[in-house]
Amino acid sequence: MIRNREDVTHLIIANKVSRGIRWAQVAKAVGQSKEWTTAACLGQMTLNKEQAETVGELFGLPDEAVAWLQIVPYKGSLPTAVPTDPLIYRWYEVVNVYGTTIKELIHEEFGDGIMSAIDFNMDIQREENPAGDRVNVVLSGKFLPYKAY
Amino acid sequence: MIRNREDVTHLIIANKVSRGIRWAQVAKAVGQSKEWTTAACLGQMTLNKEQAETVGELFGLPDEAVAWLQIVPYKGSLPTAVPTDPLIYRWYEVVNVYGTTIKELIHEEFGDGIMSAIDFNMDIQREENPAGDRVNVVLSGKFLPYKAY
Amino acid sequence: MIRNREDVTHLIIANKVSRGIRWAQVAKAVGQSKEWTTAACLGQMTLNKEQAETVGELFGLPDEAVAWLQIVPYKGSLPTAVPTDPLIYRWYEVVNVYGTTIKELIHEEFGDGIMSAIDFNMDIQREENPAGDRVNVVLSGKFLPYKAY
Amino acid sequence: MIRNREDVTHLIIANKVSRGIRWAQVAKAVGQSKEWTTAACLGQMTLNKEQAETVGELFGLPDEAVAWLQIVPYKGSLPTAVPTDPLIYRWYEVVNVYGTTIKELIHEEFGDGIMSAIDFNMDIQREENPAGDRVNVVLSGKFLPYKAY
Amino acid sequence: MIRNREDVTHLIIANKVSRGIRWAQVAKAVGQSKEWTTAACLGQMTLNKEQAETVGELFGLPDEAVAWLQIVPYKGSLPTAVPTDPLIYRWYEVVNVYGTTIKELIHEEFGDGIMSAIDFNMDIQREENPAGDRVNVVLSGKFLPYKAY
Amino acid sequence: MIRNREDVTHLIIANKVSRGIRWAQVAKAVGQSKEWTTAACLGQMTLNKEQAETVGELFGLPDEAVAWLQIVPYKGSLPTAVPTDPLIYRWYEVVNVYGTTIKELIHEEFGDGIMSAIDFNMDIQREENPAGDRVNVVLSGKFLPYKAY
Amino acid sequence: MIRNREDVTHLIIANKVSRGIRWAQVAKAVGQSKEWTTAACLGQMTLNKEQAETVGELFGLPDEAVAWLQIVPYKGSLPTAVPTDPLIYRWYEVVNVYGTTIKELIHEEFGDGIMSAIDFNMDIQREENPAGDRVNVVLSGKFLPYKAY
Amino acid sequence: MIRNREDVTHLIIANKVSRGIRWAQVAKAVGQSKEWTTAACLGQMTLNKEQAETVGELFGLPDEAVAWLQIVPYKGSLPTAVPTDPLIYRWYEVVNVYGTTIKELIHEEFGDGIMSAIDFNMDIQREENPAGDRVNVVLSGKFLPYKAY
Amino acid sequence: MIRNREDVTHLIIANKVSRGIRWAQVAKAVGQSKEWTTAACLGQMTLNKEQAETVGELFGLPDEAVAWLQIVPYKGSLPTAVPTDPLIYRWYEVVNVYGTTIKELIHEEFGDGIMSAIDFNMDIQREENPAGDRVNVVLSGKFLPYKAY
Amino acid sequence: MIRNREDVTHLIIANKVSRGIRWAQVAKAVGQSKEWTTAACLGQMTLNKEQAETVGELFGLPDEAVAWLQIVPYKGSLPTAVPTDPLIYRWYEVVNVYGTTIKELIHEEFGDGIMSAIDFNMDIQREENPAGDRVNVVLSGKFLPYKAY
Repeated sequence: MIRNREDVTHLIIANKVSRGIRWAQVAKAVGQSKEWTTAACLGQMTLNKEQAETVGELFGLPDEAVAWLQIVPYKGSLPTAVPTDPLIYRWYEVVNVYGTTIKELIHEEFGDGIMSAIDFNMDIQREENPAGDRVNVVLSGKFLPYKAY
Repeated sequence: MIRNREDVTHLIIANKVSRGIRWAQVAKAVGQSKEWTTAACLGQMTLNKEQAETVGELFGLPDEAVAWLQIVPYKGSLPTAVPTDPLIYRWYEVVNVYGTTIKELIHEEFGDGIMSAIDFNMDIQREENPAGDRVNVVLSGKFLPYKAY
Repeated sequence: MIRNREDVTHLIIANKVSRGIRWAQVAKAVGQSKEWTTAACLGQMTLNKEQAETVGELFGLPDEAVAWLQIVPYKGSLPTAVPTDPLIYRWYEVVNVYGTTIKELIHEEFGDGIMSAIDFNMDIQREENPAGDRVNVVLSGKFLPYKAY
Repeated sequence: MIRNREDVTHLIIANKVSRGIRWAQVAKAVGQSKEWTTAACLGQMTLNKEQAETVGELFGLPDEAVAWLQIVPYKGSLPTAVPTDPLIYRWYEVVNVYGTTIKELIHEEFGDGIMSAIDFNMDIQREENPAGDRVNVVLSGKFLPYKAY
Repeated sequence: MIRNREDVTHLIIANKVSRGIRWAQVAKAVGQSKEWTTAACLGQMTLNKEQAETVGELFGLPDEAVAWLQIVPYKGSLPTAVPTDPLIYRWYEVVNVYGTTIKELIHEEFGDGIMSAIDFNMDIQREENPAGDRVNVVLSGKFLPYKAY
Repeated sequence: MIRNREDVTHLIIANKVSRGIRWAQVAKAVGQSKEWTTAACLGQMTLNKEQAETVGELFGLPDEAVAWLQIVPYKGSLPTAVPTDPLIYRWYEVVNVYGTTIKELIHEEFGDGIMSAIDFNMDIQREENPAGDRVNVVLSGKFLPYKAY
Repeated sequence: MIRNREDVTHLIIANKVSRGIRWAQVAKAVGQSKEWTTAACLGQMTLNKEQAETVGELFGLPDEAVAWLQIVPYKGSLPTAVPTDPLIYRWYEVVNVYGTTIKELIHEEFGDGIMSAIDFNMDIQREENPAGDRVNVVLSGKFLPYKAY
Repeated sequence: MIRNREDVTHLIIANKVSRGIRWAQVAKAVGQSKEWTTAACLGQMTLNKEQAETVGELFGLPDEAVAWLQIVPYKGSLPTAVPTDPLIYRWYEVVNVYGTTIKELIHEEFGDGIMSAIDFNMDIQREENPAGDRVNVVLSGKFLPYKAY
Repeated sequence: MIRNREDVTHLIIANKVSRGIRWAQVAKAVGQSKEWTTAACLGQMTLNKEQAETVGELFGLPDEAVAWLQIVPYKGSLPTAVPTDPLIYRWYEVVNVYGTTIKELIHEEFGDGIMSAIDFNMDIQREENPAGDRVNVVLSGKFLPYKAY
Repeated sequence: MIRNREDVTHLIIANKVSRGIRWAQVAKAVGQSKEWTTAACLGQMTLNKEQAETVGELFGLPDEAVAWLQIVPYKGSLPTAVPTDPLIYRWYEVVNVYGTTIKELIHEEFGDGIMSAIDFNMDIQREENPAGDRVNVVLSGKFLPYKAY
C-alpha cells in the first residue's frame, strides 16, 4: 500500500533508475519546464489529472500513485536543516554567505518586501566556457511589498 | 578598540544609516559589482588596500577598521541555521523545496560534481512587469566534477 | 552609539515603560492600525520619514534612532525557535496542532499555493462574553497559487 | 495491526485520496465544523463513539481504527520544530515576526494572561477580492488571566 | 540604564545576596504566597503598583526598575531547552519519564483537555521524615476541556 | 518477534484500546498506585514476576513480552526534547516558567541539594470545583543534600 | 558590580592565573578534597561562611563575591551540550560509548535505580606506569532504587 | 537478513531476555572483564573469532551474526545527545557539572593533554555500606600529552 | 525492492562481512585508489558502468543495485552532525580545534579562497614507528580563489 | 581586565592586524612549526614561559595576557557545531562525506582503534601545479588500539 507522497517519490526514483528515464524527457511529455516537472516528480508540486497520468505511464506507477500525484504534498525535500550533500550545501552556503547582501540590494531597489518563492520560476542551463563550463541559473520571483494597514 | 571584523560591519552599517549612503554608490567608487561590494562591506569578502581605503573614506572608518577590511574574514552572515528574516527565508525555502530538483538537473546535464560557490558570481536586477515587478537573479558558478583517483 | 535596530527597539520599550505610553496612542499618532504600528516599533516593519519622526518624538528618541526606523530591519522577534513565553507559545501550539488542518482546508478551497504573510493584515479585538471574555483575531492574507511554468 | 493513532491518520489520508472524499463532506456527516473535523481526522482531536463510526464508515476503516479515534491522541502534527512546508511555514513566520506584537496588544487590552489554545475555535473562509482572493481566518480563544495566590 | 526585565531580575538577585533577604520575607511583605512572589521577582509574573513599590523598597531598586515590575514580562526562566541544573533537571526528568503517564491518567479521569498552567498554583513544603526529609509539592490547575465546534 | 520494550508498550496500548481496559483497573490488579502502574505499563518502570504476569494476562501478552516487563527499561517517554502535546507541554512550561522559583524555594528551605526523582511518588486527583474542576497533583520526593567530602 | 556567580568564577580564575595559585593549595586551606574545592570555586558547589572567606582571602575577592559563594549556584559548567574541549569530550565519549554498558551492569547488580550524582564523590590520582602514566579516577555514588508505591 | 551491527545487538538483547542470561556469565565464558564483554555485546567493541563464537553459542546467534561481531562497529550507544534515561543521565550530569573541575585537576597534575578513552578500562563494583550500598566505579586511562612540533 | 542508494550500501556491507572481502581487493578490481573505491561503495561516489559491474560481481549484487551504483548519490555518510564514533570524532575534533589555524595558514599562503573538497584526493598509509605505528594521511585539494567581479 | 583566554586571542588577532605580523614569522621566533604556533596563538595550545614571553613581545601583550598563554585553555575554535565559513566547512564536508571511508580503511589496516588527535601533527604546504596550485596537508597521528581487559 502507498501510505504517502514520499512513497510515490521513492517509486518514481527507483523506476527512473531501472528504466533509464531522463528528466528532460519527462518534462517534454508533461509539457512543462524540466525544473517544474522534476520538482513535481520529487514530491514538491501538484500535478493535474492529465500530467499525473502521463507521469504514471512513463514510470509504470499504479493507479493509487497517480491519485497521490494530484494531491497537494507536504513540501520540503531535504532530510536535515543544514544539507549534507555537497551540491545542495553550496546553495545553502550562498544563502548563508550572501544572504544579507541579497537582502540589502533587493531592499535598496524595491523597499521593504520579499521576492516570492511561490510566484517563482527557475531555469538551469549549461554555459560553455573554455575555463570550464559553468552552471547558469536564473531565478525569477515577483516582488511582494509589505504595506502598512 | 575594534576586536573583529563584525565590529567593522556594525560600524559600516551604522554610518551608512546616518550618512544615507547607497550600496550602488559604494560599488561605483570601489569599481566592482554591487553584489560583490555589498558582500565585502558586510564582512564576507576581502578588499585590497585601495578598495579598503575607498570604503574607509566613504564611511569615515578609522585606520584600524581599514586594516581589518584587508584581512580574510570568518564568513557566514546569518545568526541562525534556519534564517528568520522573511526575505532571506524565501531563499532558504527555495533550497529546501527545490534542492533535490537542482541536484537532479545539474547531475543529468553535467554528471557528478558541484556548482562552485567560490568561482561564482551573482547579478540581481529588477524586471518591470505589468503584473508586478519581478526580482531577477542570475547565479553563475563553474561546474567542478568529482574525479576518480 | 546605536549599533543596530535592536538597540532602537530596546530604547523604545524602555521609554514606553518610563513614560507610560500605550500602543493604541502610538498607532493613532502614526495613523496606522495598532497591529502594524506595534510591529514597526518592535523592529519588524519599516517606517517612512514622517512616521519615524512621530515615533521619535513620542518616545524621545535621538536622531540616529529615527534614521534607523526608516531602514528595512532584519526581521524575527523571538529569541528561540520554539517560543518559551506562554502567550506566544499558545500560537506556536496552534500552528503545531492545527498546521496540517489549515493546510488541508486551504488547499481544498484554493488548490496548491500559500496564504501570504506579506500581503497580510491582522486585527486583534476583545469579544465580551459572560463565560469569560475572548480574544478574537482576524488574519487575512492574499492567496498566492503555485503555477507550472 | 494498527499500532497507534498515526497509523489511523495514514489510513484516513490514503483512503481519502483513493475515494476522493472532501473534508467539508466529512464535517457535514460528523455534524461539526470543518476545522474541528479535519483536525480530528488528522489525529489531533478525540471523537465520540458516534462521530468515530461515521468517520469509519466514510473512509472504510476497520473496527480497530474506529476504537483508536475515540482515544485521546498524542498531539502535534508537524514533523519538525520549524515547519518546512511553505504554507505552514508562513504561519510560523507570522508567529515569529508578529509574536511580540500580539503579546503586547493582548496584554495592553487584557493584562497578564494568555489566549487559550484549548477553549479555542477557528474559522477559515475565502474572501473574494478583485486584486486576488484572500484567505480569511478568525481565531477566537478565551482569555485566561494569571492570578496571584 | 535598565534595558529590560532581565536587568531588573539581576538587580534583585544581586541585592538579595548582599542584603541577605529571604523569599519568605518578601512574600510576607507583598502579601502573596512565597511561590508566586518568588516567580514575580524572578521576572515571570506582573506585579501591581503597590506590590512593585514594596519589592522596590525591600531591594533598594531605582524607580525605573519599579516601573518594569508592573509590565508583563517575556516569560521563560531557563537558559537552555534541557536544563543543566541538577535540581531543575529532576523536574524535567519527571516530565520526560512520567509525561505519558500523567497524560493517560488525566485523560482517563477528565477526557480530552489540559491542566491549565495559567489558572494554576503551587505549594512547596518540607515534610519531616525520619528516613530523610521530603519535599512535598502540590500543583493545582484548572482542567480545560477541548470542545468540538 | 519482540525486539525491545517499546514494542511491548505498543502492544499494551493497542490491546488496551481494543479491550477497553482502564489504568485504574490495571493498578488494582497489580496492587500498586495507578501512577506507578501506568508508568510501568508505558515502559518506564520494572515489574516483578507476579506483576508482569498479571499485566500479561490482562492485556493478553505473549510470554516474551512478560519477560521484557521484568527487565529494567531505557527510560524516557517523550519523542522530542520539548514536548508537542499540549497537556504534557503545560508541565514543561511549569518547569520553564517556575524552574528557578522552585530552585530558590527548595534551597531556601533545605540548602544545596535536590528533590529526588527516584525516591519519588506522585498522586493525581480530581478536585471538584464550581468554577470548573481542577487537577490536583502531589509530588513528593526525598531531599538529597550535596555534601562536601 | 558582580551580577551573578559566573562573574565570581571569572574573577577567581583570572586571579588564580595572575597569582599562580594551585587548586591543591586552595583545597588544603578550605579543608576539603581538591575535587570538591575546585568544583566549588568553579561555581558548582555552595561554600559555608568560613570556606567562602578563606577562598575570598586567597584570591583577593571583594565582599560581594564572598557573599555569592555562599549562595546555591545554577549548576552546569559547560558552554555546549556536547563539549568541544578534547579532555572533557573524552569523558562524554565514555558516557556515549559505555552508557548502555554501565546501565546494564549496575542493573544486573542492584536492580532498577540510579547511581546518585548528589551523594557522590570523586577522587582523581596519578598512577605511575612505565608504559606512560595513567589517570585513575574513582567515582562513588550511593545506589538509589526505584520503588513501587 | 542481518543488515548491520545494531541488528545483532537487538538479537543478543532479545535472546538474553528470553534465555535469562547474565552478563557476568557471558564475561566468564569470553574470558574478559564484564565491562568489556558487555560493551562488546552491545555493539561497541570488536570480538575475535573465538570470542564471537562463544557469544554466538550462548545467545544462539546465526553464523551471519557471529561474523558481524568480528567487524569494527560504528560506535555510540545512546539515541540522543543528552541521554533521557535517569541512570545514564546522572553520568552525563557528572560530566556537565564536574567537567571543568576534572579538566583543571588533570592539567594541574599532568599539564596539557587528555586522559585516553581508548587505552582505558573501567571497573564497576558494589560497596556495601550501612547508609545504603554504593556503586564504585574506577576509570583508568593513559595520560596522553600534547606536544609542540 | 531496492528503494535508494543506502539500501545498496547496506547490501554491500552485509555481503562484505559474509564473504570476507577487503577494500584493497575491491580497489584493485575496480582499478582506482582504495580511498575512492571505498567511498564509492559506501554510497558517496558515482561508478561508471564497468566499475559498477565489477563491484556487483564481487559482492553478488542484483542488477537493480548495479544500476543504482551509476546514479549520483545524495552524499553525507554520518548519522549525526557531531559524529559519535571515536575514530571519526577525532577527525571532527581536528576540524574543531585546528579549524581556525588551517584557515589562517591557507589564507596567509594563498589569500582568500578555499581548498576544494571536490578536486580533491586522499591517501591513507601506515607509517611504522618504534614508538607505535602512525596513520599518515595526505589530503590534497586544489586552491580555489574568491575573485571580485 | 582579561577575563579568559578568548580575550587574549582577540588581542593577538587585533594586534596582528594592526602590526601586520605573519604567522610564519611568529613560528620562527617561537621555534616551533607554523601549524602548532598558530593554534597556540588562537587559544588551542599551551605555551611555556619562554614561548609565551616571545609571543607577548611580538604582539605587545600585557603581562596578564602572557600569564594566560601558559594556562591550558578550554579548546574548540569554532562558534557553531557545523562551521559556516566556506574554507572550514570544506573540511567538515570531508569528514562527513569520507568519514566512514576513513574508518573502514584505518580499521582494515590496523584493526579496532583510533588515529590520535593528541599525539598528532599537521603540515600544510603549497604544491605548485600548472592546472592550479594545490593545498597539500599531511596529517599524522599515532594509532591507538582498543584492547580487551
